This record gives sequence, structure tokens and C-alpha cells, in this order.
Amino acid sequence: MYNFRTDLALERRDLYKKANKLDKEIDGIETQEEQISDKITTSRVKVINEEGEKAIGKPIGNYITIDIKKLKIATEDDIQHSSEALTKELKELVNKHSNPKDTILVVGLGNIYVTPDSLGPKVVKDIDITRHILEYMPEYLSPETRPVSVISPGVLGTTGIETLEILKGIVDNVKPKLVIVIDALASRSIQRISSTIQLADTGITPGAGVGNKRKDLNIETLGVPVIAIGVPTVVEAATIAADSLDLFIEKLQENAESNQYLNKLQEEDKYEMIKEILMPEDYNFIVTPKEIDDLIQNMANIVARGINFAIN
Amino acid sequence: MYNFRTDLALERRDLYKKANKLDKEIDGIETQEEQISDKITTSRVKVINEEGEKAIGKPIGNYITIDIKKLKIATEDDIQHSSEALTKELKELVNKHSNPKDTILVVGLGNIYVTPDSLGPKVVKDIDITRHILEYMPEYLSPETRPVSVISPGVLGTTGIETLEILKGIVDNVKPKLVIVIDALASRSIQRISSTIQLADTGITPGAGVGNKRKDLNIETLGVPVIAIGVPTVVEAATIAADSLDLFIEKLQENAESNQYLNKLQEEDKYEMIKEILMPEDYNFIVTPKEIDDLIQNMANIVARGINFAIN
Amino acid sequence: MYNFRTDLALERRDLYKKANKLDKEIDGIETQEEQISDKITTSRVKVINEEGEKAIGKPIGNYITIDIKKLKIATEDDIQHSSEALTKELKELVNKHSNPKDTILVVGLGNIYVTPDSLGPKVVKDIDITRHILEYMPEYLSPETRPVSVISPGVLGTTGIETLEILKGIVDNVKPKLVIVIDALASRSIQRISSTIQLADTGITPGAGVGNKRKDLNIETLGVPVIAIGVPTVVEAATIAADSLDLFIEKLQENAESNQYLNKLQEEDKYEMIKEILMPEDYNFIVTPKEIDDLIQNMANIVARGINFAIN
Amino acid sequence: MYNFRTDLALERRDLYKKANKLDKEIDGIETQEEQISDKITTSRVKVINEEGEKAIGKPIGNYITIDIKKLKIATEDDIQHSSEALTKELKELVNKHSNPKDTILVVGLGNIYVTPDSLGPKVVKDIDITRHILEYMPEYLSPETRPVSVISPGVLGTTGIETLEILKGIVDNVKPKLVIVIDALASRSIQRISSTIQLADTGITPGAGVGNKRKDLNIETLGVPVIAIGVPTVVEAATIAADSLDLFIEKLQENAESNQYLNKLQEEDKYEMIKEILMPEDYNFIVTPKEIDDLIQNMANIVARGINFAIN
Repeated sequence: MYNFRTDLALERRDLYKKANKLDKEIDGIETQEEQISDKITTSRVKVINEEGEKAIGKPIGNYITIDIKKLKIATEDDIQHSSEALTKELKELVNKHSNPKDTILVVGLGNIYVTPDSLGPKVVKDIDITRHILEYMPEYLSPETRPVSVISPGVLGTTGIETLEILKGIVDNVKPKLVIVIDALASRSIQRISSTIQLADTGITPGAGVGNKRKDLNIETLGVPVIAIGVPTVVEAATIAADSLDLFIEKLQENAESNQYLNKLQEEDKYEMIKEILMPEDYNFIVTPKEIDDLIQNMANIVARGINFAIN
Repeated sequence: MYNFRTDLALERRDLYKKANKLDKEIDGIETQEEQISDKITTSRVKVINEEGEKAIGKPIGNYITIDIKKLKIATEDDIQHSSEALTKELKELVNKHSNPKDTILVVGLGNIYVTPDSLGPKVVKDIDITRHILEYMPEYLSPETRPVSVISPGVLGTTGIETLEILKGIVDNVKPKLVIVIDALASRSIQRISSTIQLADTGITPGAGVGNKRKDLNIETLGVPVIAIGVPTVVEAATIAADSLDLFIEKLQENAESNQYLNKLQEEDKYEMIKEILMPEDYNFIVTPKEIDDLIQNMANIVARGINFAIN
Repeated sequence: MYNFRTDLALERRDLYKKANKLDKEIDGIETQEEQISDKITTSRVKVINEEGEKAIGKPIGNYITIDIKKLKIATEDDIQHSSEALTKELKELVNKHSNPKDTILVVGLGNIYVTPDSLGPKVVKDIDITRHILEYMPEYLSPETRPVSVISPGVLGTTGIETLEILKGIVDNVKPKLVIVIDALASRSIQRISSTIQLADTGITPGAGVGNKRKDLNIETLGVPVIAIGVPTVVEAATIAADSLDLFIEKLQENAESNQYLNKLQEEDKYEMIKEILMPEDYNFIVTPKEIDDLIQNMANIVARGINFAIN
Repeated sequence: MYNFRTDLALERRDLYKKANKLDKEIDGIETQEEQISDKITTSRVKVINEEGEKAIGKPIGNYITIDIKKLKIATEDDIQHSSEALTKELKELVNKHSNPKDTILVVGLGNIYVTPDSLGPKVVKDIDITRHILEYMPEYLSPETRPVSVISPGVLGTTGIETLEILKGIVDNVKPKLVIVIDALASRSIQRISSTIQLADTGITPGAGVGNKRKDLNIETLGVPVIAIGVPTVVEAATIAADSLDLFIEKLQENAESNQYLNKLQEEDKYEMIKEILMPEDYNFIVTPKEIDDLIQNMANIVARGINFAIN
């Protein structure tokens, strides 16, 4: 498979179309775009069959992308509207896969001690949990309340345990009817860092965004439907460099300054070449905005609020 | 049962002896004290039968207390010696309950976001984990390496899930032969705050130290032996006040200034009275040194180092 | 002077009245109370002459106390109303001591690394600063904007420099017309911990709340008016214990169970006795709610919002 | 002047030599390299006259670079050796510019809330300060002790005050004979991120590393000698991309695949072009290792230890 180096279905579809010089939609894929407001756009990518699956390397299902412009200088209103956009889309998926009083388990993937990987643990800190109150002090809550619990399982590198091993055991004991997983993703575009939310009802491969693929979390492995909420928080440095090379070669071609060799080069993936030349082995270099600490906090607020209103 | 308001077996034994005016040892209890150095004392309390169990409300087993004087102004040497004292005692318990290459799961109980309850999560952050390396890159480790993994399950109030429910599932999947649990405890003495370590091979009742008892973690509930490492990090404010009343009445009696009523009062527990008068309902008031943030960090270093050398 | 062990003028006035069995107001003091809402009460203590000054050990000036009930379980509305109450009182003091476009310097006293002492640095983090934008990019702001800058000078124990030495230099260079100082205070009442705000237009003695008095910050030492915003975040453990003894002796007297000795004792201050018996020398023991991390965060939000609306 | 996009004198010298195709040393510059150990290399760049100054855009003075290999996987020994290398070099500069008992002020520049900019505040947190003890409790210290104090002034964007304005006032009041400033720098090489220390006795331009140049801190502006300790913590994303383009064109030339246009292009700076195409306006994109939080902590330990042994 083509190495997309992005977890966003929307970006993969665009890259596939460009690489294959397609003008019309990919077979097996349906897309739709909606402008929610000045600053917010929602795109829906539906993978409807195996062709679509093969093209973009994502299982059959729904992938919804919410893009928020200029989140860095967002007002309180922008944040409220963004979380409302998430609530609306998430509510639809939740209702499709569960009943109103079904137990939900919200899982915050990632490492609280590594800023760009801390989104999941930060979101679950702000989720309104009710399961223990329903069990020990039910008189404090309306009888309509849905049992909600959360967990931050850590990452393989800090626990020594596969996330799937941890969650399997918890799901067996807590018996939720639906799992919602929050994780950091990789994207190709630095504009999307901590400014885009992807919703998917097909589960997730934890750590994909930060270069350490782990076992899938989905209905096959956990036994209950898994909705994934992903936010790009990093772009790999070699990706940026490779993309800038591509832009550069395109520019040469426009100016008719390229030659045969360059044209051939354009077909190739420069990522590995750059990685080899540029990057020291032991590190995982990423591109982030300097303001990543603040951006992650803003996004955590949006996602937590969006989930709280969708499931309670 | 008498409300000891301490999780330390050693303090309970002293309180029981005082309350019952015993000069000799309690039936069913054996104790022993060892001066390790100028600053470090180790005490061993062994509960050997049901009498001992009933007297101090702790199950049959071994309770080892390591007291470290003036930890606040400890040198790097003091810290090293303290962790060595822990390693020595822990190694003995670990070898008694497991074989050299048996898998161990280290559990950091508590809430990372509440300083006096954050010891457990801080300790596990510094444990040397090996289980995933043995599984994915065994060539990097000696074949003698013991598989070690860790987990910070959070607390009921932040997850909505009983710690036992979380750990049961993980133990079923990870299948350790021994579990080591780290938790914050309550003590009666402010001198012991973040200056004492209690080791026990009988498991633990999480949250006991901070006033929210939860289901026991021990060989009966988890199916494997559980060694508990507890550190007092708080004293309840009402306990301090009640203890100061007791000291005050004692002083009156020494000066022959007390009367019948006071003598009668001395027999009673003033804790509830004080709690009612002094403490607003909604809060859990604790006494800590102002320097608690630093002290917890020092103690976390000692405990993590002590464990790493005992199990690897 | 009587050792009030509280920085709140309101508590000192009450303690003075009680100690001197006064029914009417203290000479040189005027007080007034206003119920703002169900949960918020504002009290005004005015020290009008030297008698008042001597009685409660606070300089001539205005002391406004805003008490907020059950802040721990406050809704977003309660927080908004609390910050509005602060804005109203602060605006009055600010307008009394400065003109609309006068430069203001906001100073966050305290130690960011010690939770109960971290209020000041946390508040200034959220103050809207404008001075540098007015200087480098004035086109982005309305010409009516007041220049606001902030500083967190640290504490003597972490810098080796008296707060006054640091601020004197900064005031000489920045030349504000008014300084607003935020600090943690000590109170006698655990109900007031992180639930009360005291405003004073007489400056502040930093560190008074945590047992390390430093040089005063006021118009005499800094050369410009100093408004102090103080929030009690700790009660000394020995204070709690001494107060519980007092309550206990009162109760004995009510039941006619006391004797001459006890009656005499009642006149004395038990604080030193308790401190000697109960507290290890090297530490500064304080009483806080276990939830202090969250409470400080809530209060920092209220104070920052209150200031932002009062001065911008 | 050529835009070096690095604060390291050593990198500037290399870039200047490469750009001007010099084989021998630059006029006005002297360099020297010393292999301290397997992992540690020290380089000395001396700017001796105006020619040297003009060539690399750094004032006359000494620039010492300590490079530490594989700091990420450093052992405790490596950290100790690195801090010893820093102590040795710093001691020499300190003795050159001050007497043994002269007061020193250590300044931690940067923003504690932005990880790659938090090195300065983290270092000063661990400096052994003595000035207040010498003033209030001199009996606790040897009479040979040097008065040391520290300050973290924040950054213009969080205080509204120029760092120079803050420090000027403090220096006027504290009257140190020498100022040591710690700051984060920019470099061209991602291998150097949090792995290199530059020492200079010519002061510093704060914020240069993160794209916001501020007023210089040096003997002219502060009135006392200023030793700067800088650590590269970020590389600008556009720099990485431009450098990868250069490498790419070089490779084409080696393979005789380039053309006239490409050869011309090689002379140009692609940085601005890339910045325009690739980077959204509002952000400052940087490249960091994913492990930046840990790396900054390691480096802060090395620098604090290195300073403590050099000045006490």
C-alpha cells in the first residue's frame, strides 16, 4: 500500500486522487462537504466497499472531519461552536450504535507526559462520569442518566502492556455497550495540527499518529462498537521536507526548468531518502507549532465538551 | 472495632497497647526493631494469629515500617540509604512470594492531579519496565530479565470504575505471578508524613488513607499475592485536633487539675465531636507540610529506586 | 499585639470583639455587610483612625471581604457572579486611586511550585496584558486601552531576593501609576480556604499567610498606591488544634464541668503550647482541603476574570 | 547580513565558510576543538576583531560549544560528565570576569508554560541560592560562600514588559558583579536539539531562538558582565525544509543531473520561498523530537549542576 503518512481519511482520499490523477470520485468512496460557519467546515468520507477500503487503506465505515480555522486565536464563541459541531456529529454515531441508557466507556489514549501525545488523557479528565454515582448514590442523579466511565490506559512504552490487553480486561468487567476512544493522529498538513477532529465508527490503531502502530481497537478485538475521535497533533519532520521537495519540483516543471531525471524523481517517494539523510536514528522528529501546549489544551476543552453534550 | 484512623500496623499496635494499658506485647503480635543508621529505623510487626488480627484490625502477615528522619533536608546519600533499606526488605518479600523470572505487575494507586494522593502514579512513572521489550525486542535484554509491567488505574472518583474491576481484567490478561501496589496512607502522626514506608504482604484497601475505602486488593480478590507499599501522606485535621485534646487532658491530670468529668472524657473518642463542630461537611480536611509537593517527589524517588533494585 | 493568626481584617475584628467582650463596634472601626446573593456576602471593614489601627493591627484604609459559599461545588454561574462581585469592588478602588488610562502593574506573589502558595502566579497567567501591544503594535488596540503588565517575582526562598527589591526596580522602570498585588493569606477558619477574597487599598506584607513575613509592599515602599487582593489558602495546623481546645473548654463551662484552672487557661493562648508539643520543628504544617489543587484553580479563574473586567 | 538562522557561533562559522567556499579559517576568527570523551566534544570559537564580528554576526568574545552525543539515552555517568565539562568551561569564564566572593545573579529566560522555551526557568529552579541565607542566617554557611540569587523574569508576551526593563531594575537593587543568563536557542541542526550547550561571555539577545528578538542583555545594557548559557531546543520547520532542498540539489549535481537553473537556485536562500508556500501565517512552526519534555528535563539537570559547581 501507498504510505500515506496521514491518519485522516480525507487527506488519504485527496492524496490518492492526486497520485492517480483522478478527476472524479474514487470507486467505493462517497464524500460530502458542509460549511458550518465562517470558521468551521465538516467533511464526510464514506468508505462503502472493498474498493474504497483498498484505495485509502481504511475499513468500510464513516469518517467525519471537522476543520476549525485559526483555533489559536479562537474566541470563547468559536470554541463553543466547534464543540457543538462535534456534539452533533458524535450524537448521530452514538445513537446509531447504542441505546440512550447503554453504558459508555470513554478511553483517553496517549502519554500524559509527552505534550503532543497528551490529548486523550486531558480529554477524559474533563468527561462527566456517572457510573459510580449511579451505583453508590443513585438518588443524586435523574433515572434517565446514562452510565459513563473513563480510563487512561497509558501507552506500551510506559506500561509494558499492549493497550488492547488492558482494555480487553476492563471491557470484560465494566461491560460497556459502546467504547469511545480519543487519540492523537498524524496528518500531512501542518495547518491541521490541533485544528481538525476526525470522527470514525470503525475503531482505531493506537499510536499510528506517532509512529508506533499497535493492535487495533475495534468491534472485532473489543467485542463492542468503537467510535474513534482523532486529532492531528504532529506532522513528521521528514514528511514536511518531502512535501516541500515535491512542491519545488512542481514549480520547476511549471517553469519548464525540469529535466527527465527530475520528472522521474517526481514519481518517487522522497520520504525515505530524506529520513536517511536528515534525521538522526534514535529520534522521532516532529513538527509542531511552538504554541502546542496551549493548542492541545484548547482542543481538549472542545472535545471534552463535545462528548459531554453528545452522551449525557 | 476501635477506629485507629491510621493504616500503619505499627501505630495501631501502639495505640492498642496504650488504650488497653498493656505493658507486654499484644497476644498474636510479634514486633522487632532495628536501627539501620542514624536516620533510618526499621520495625517489623508480625500478625501471627486471629487474636492479633482482631486486636489491630490487620490480616495475618508481615508489616514492615521504615522510618526516615528529616527527609526534607535529606542528602543524596540519605535518599540512597533509604532506598537500599526498602530494597532489602522488599527483596525478601518478593522472593518469598515469587520466583526470579516470574512476571510482576506494579500498580500505582491514587490520583495524579491531587498532590498528596499522587505518590503511586509518580512511582510507576520511574519503574524500569521490561515486559514489552522482552516480547518485541528480546535481543536487547539479558535472558535472565524478569518481565515487569506497570499500571496507574486512577481512582473511582475520576474513572467511575472500582480499582478492583480495572485490575482484575488486567491481571487476567497480563497474568503476573505477583502484584506490587503503591498507595498513599493515613497515619496518626504528622512526623510520619512522607517520611515512612510500610511494606505488607497482605494486600491493601485502596483509598483508606484518604477517607474513601474501596474493595480490597489481595490474593483472594486478584488471585495472586499482593505486596503493598504504603506511604502516609496526610493526617486528617480532626485527628490532629482530637490528639491535641488528649494531650491537653493528660497534662491536666498530671497537674492534678482534672475532674471526674474530664477523666471520663478521656476514655471517649473526641474525633466525631470535633469533626462535627469544626469541619464543613463537604470537605475532607487534611494536615500536610507546606512542602508536600517536594516531599512527595523525594519519596517517589526513594520508592521507585527501592523497587527497581529489588525486582530487577 | 495579640497574635491574630489571620490576615483578614474581618476575622481580626471579630476576634478582638470576642477577646474584649465588646458588644458594640470597636472604636476606630466601621463595618457593613451586604448579601449579594444566596451564596455571596460582601463585608466592608473600614479602619478610620489610630485606635482602629491599634485594635486590629491593620493600617487605616478599606478592607472588603467577599465570601463565597460552597465554591467547591460551584456552577459556572456562581463563578461568574463571584468574579462580578470582585469586579464591582475592585473597580471602585481602582478608580479612587488611578485615572482610566493610567498604567497598572499586576503582581502575582507566591511560589508556583507549592500548590497552596501558587494562586498569585496562576492569576497573572490569565490577566489580559496590553502594555507591549500598545508599544509595538498600537494599531491592534483601541486608543482607550489602559496599559497593563504583570510580573511573578517568585519568593525569597526560591530567588534569594526580597520581593520588595525586585518590585522596586521594576516599578522604577515600568512606572505604573497603580500596583495590584495578589497573594495567598492565612485565615483562622477552614471554611474560608480558597472561598474568600479580601480587597485592601493599604498594600500587603507578602508571605504573612505562610509564616514568613517579608518587607511591606505599599505606597511608602513602592511609591505608588498598592491594592492587595488576598485569598486564604491555608490554616496553620496548630491554629486548628488551639481553636478546638477553646471550643472544648467553652463546652465544659456550659456544662458547668470546668474548674478554676480551666477557666484561667481559657484566657491564655494555647497556640504556642500546641506548637511545641505537636509539631516537628523543621516543618510548617498546614490544614487544607484534599481538593486544594482544584479549589486554587477555581479561585484563580474568579480573581483573574474579576481583575480583567475591572481594569480593562 | 546573511540570515544564519542559528544562534550558535560554531554553526555560523561553518555556514560562512561553506557559503564563501573558504578552506582556511575566517579572518578574525580562531577555532579549536577538544574531544573530552567518547560522547563529549568541546569547540572554542574566538571572535578576535571586527572582521570576525562582521563575518558571523557575533560580537568579539569567546564562544564555547559543548556537544553531547545521544543524550536521550544518556546514563547517569554521561550526565555527570556533561555537567563537569560545563563546570570546567564556566568556571574559567566566571573567574575571568569576577572575584570569588562577588555576588552573582542567575537569570532563567523563557516561558515556563511552553515546553521548548522552559529551559531557563527549569534551570534556575535547581540553582543553589545563598544570598538570603547570607543576609538572614549567615551562621548556617561558611564565610567563603558566594552570594547567589536567581530570577525568572518571564517573556514579553506573558508580562508586557521587556526583559531588559525587568532585569535593569533588579540589577540596580541587587547589585551583582556578574550576571549568568540561561536561554533556549535556535540551531540549524536537529541533532543539536537539547544536546548542545553554548557558553559566551558577550551576553545574549533573548528570544532570538524562538523568532522574537528582544533588546540585548550585555555589559552595555546591564552595566555588569553577562555570561550566556544557551541550549538549542528547536529548529524552525522552514529551515529543515530549505536545508533538505539544498541537500537534494547537491545530490543532483553530484549525479550530473542538474541544469543551469538549478545551479543558480543553489545560490539562493530557499527559506523565504518555503515559508511562504508551506507555513500558515499565524504560527511559528518548529521541529522537535517527540521526547522534548524529557530531553529538556535532562538538559536542565546538566546545566543546573554545571552552574552550581562552577560558582559555589
